[in-house]
Amino acid sequence: MVNYPNMKRSWQSRAMMTSDKKHYTAHRGMSLEEDISLSNQYYLSHDIAVIYKKPTPIQIVKVDYPRRESAKIVEAYYKTPSTTDYNGIYRGRYIDFEAKETKVKTFPFANISKHQIDHLQKIINHGGIAFVIIAFTSLNEVYLIDASHMINDYYHSQRKSITYQKIKDLGHLIPQGYQPRLDYLKVVDDWYFKEDE
Amino acid sequence: MVNYPNMKRSWQSRAMMTSDKKHYTAHRGMSLEEDISLSNQYYLSHDIAVIYKKPTPIQIVKVDYPRRESAKIVEAYYKTPSTTDYNGIYRGRYIDFEAKETKVKTFPFANISKHQIDHLQKIINHGGIAFVIIAFTSLNEVYLIDASHMINDYYHSQRKSITYQKIKDLGHLIPQGYQPRLDYLKVVDDWYFKEDE
Repeated sequence: MVNYPNMKRSWQSRAMMTSDKKHYTAHRGMSLEEDISLSNQYYLSHDIAVIYKKPTPIQIVKVDYPRRESAKIVEAYYKTPSTTDYNGIYRGRYIDFEAKETKVKTFPFANISKHQIDHLQKIINHGGIAFVIIAFTSLNEVYLIDASHMINDYYHSQRKSITYQKIKDLGHLIPQGYQPRLDYLKVVDDWYFKEDE
Repeated sequence: MVNYPNMKRSWQSRAMMTSDKKHYTAHRGMSLEEDISLSNQYYLSHDIAVIYKKPTPIQIVKVDYPRRESAKIVEAYYKTPSTTDYNGIYRGRYIDFEAKETKVKTFPFANISKHQIDHLQKIINHGGIAFVIIAFTSLNEVYLIDASHMINDYYHSQRKSITYQKIKDLGHLIPQGYQPRLDYLKVVDDWYFKEDE
């Protein structure tokens, strides 16, 4: 590998960029999905974890073949996902999660489907790590909350939502930075692997 | 639950249907994908494993809104998947695999992408269970072969394919039946969990 003379400087400028870790930049034109996608790419390229967003399920109705061997979908519809958006492997464990943004200081259960809640329960039953990432966009704060809390409130709470305060109490603030953008695996290390360290 | 008087007879007829387990029925109108899908549904409904096929990735170019809140995709294209088709959790372990049919008595590497081969290698590196399911449709035989063998031949073999004989020697014949159609987790039990029993 060539030892570029400006490498240190380049690294220093990155360090400066990462120093301000407090503010969630979803509203500087990035969505939570893009931030997680960038973080997953970082984890993958640094051989830390293999976690992908599943493609959006599409019901294909009609396909044209304008040229030989080139298929053009001309009628299709979005389908409701029966599972969560993200899964993969980290430190030998199966990881599964859903990620949601909310503009208000509460997380309405209308934002997550019963299918997804039940899917997360199954992952827990089978020994996987299951959680929900919730971005409070107005506060620039992103939390990881274990799926068990979400499932419990979904089925047993009087409310049709889970409050910011409760997510703050039961969940864990995800550190934000330059690379990875949203270091949610840091929280996974601290809370799901703490007995290993 | 109502105890239907004809339940036993119904079960007996099922038993008769399962007695002929030798022949792969992909060509009785079922594809390998459908067989795996049915098996995954069986595993899910019997609380054995949570394994899904990922949706096909689609590049969406144009969406119309003929009615409010109803989106109709009118231009889209198939994208090349960067990962495998199937993943999930079984007995606490992360499972990842690709499934392919071949009509000839060999498996051409052209049937699997370099992206998929490299993805399977990453899964092994991170402690997951990774394999390829190959259906020889002319023989009605379906094999599970550990991804390590596939990766090794993909990168080091002189041939641009892996022979039926080699898959038979290194892989494991998947039992076929009525429910589950293709009991590939039986093979996973025997080969990936044998030290546990």
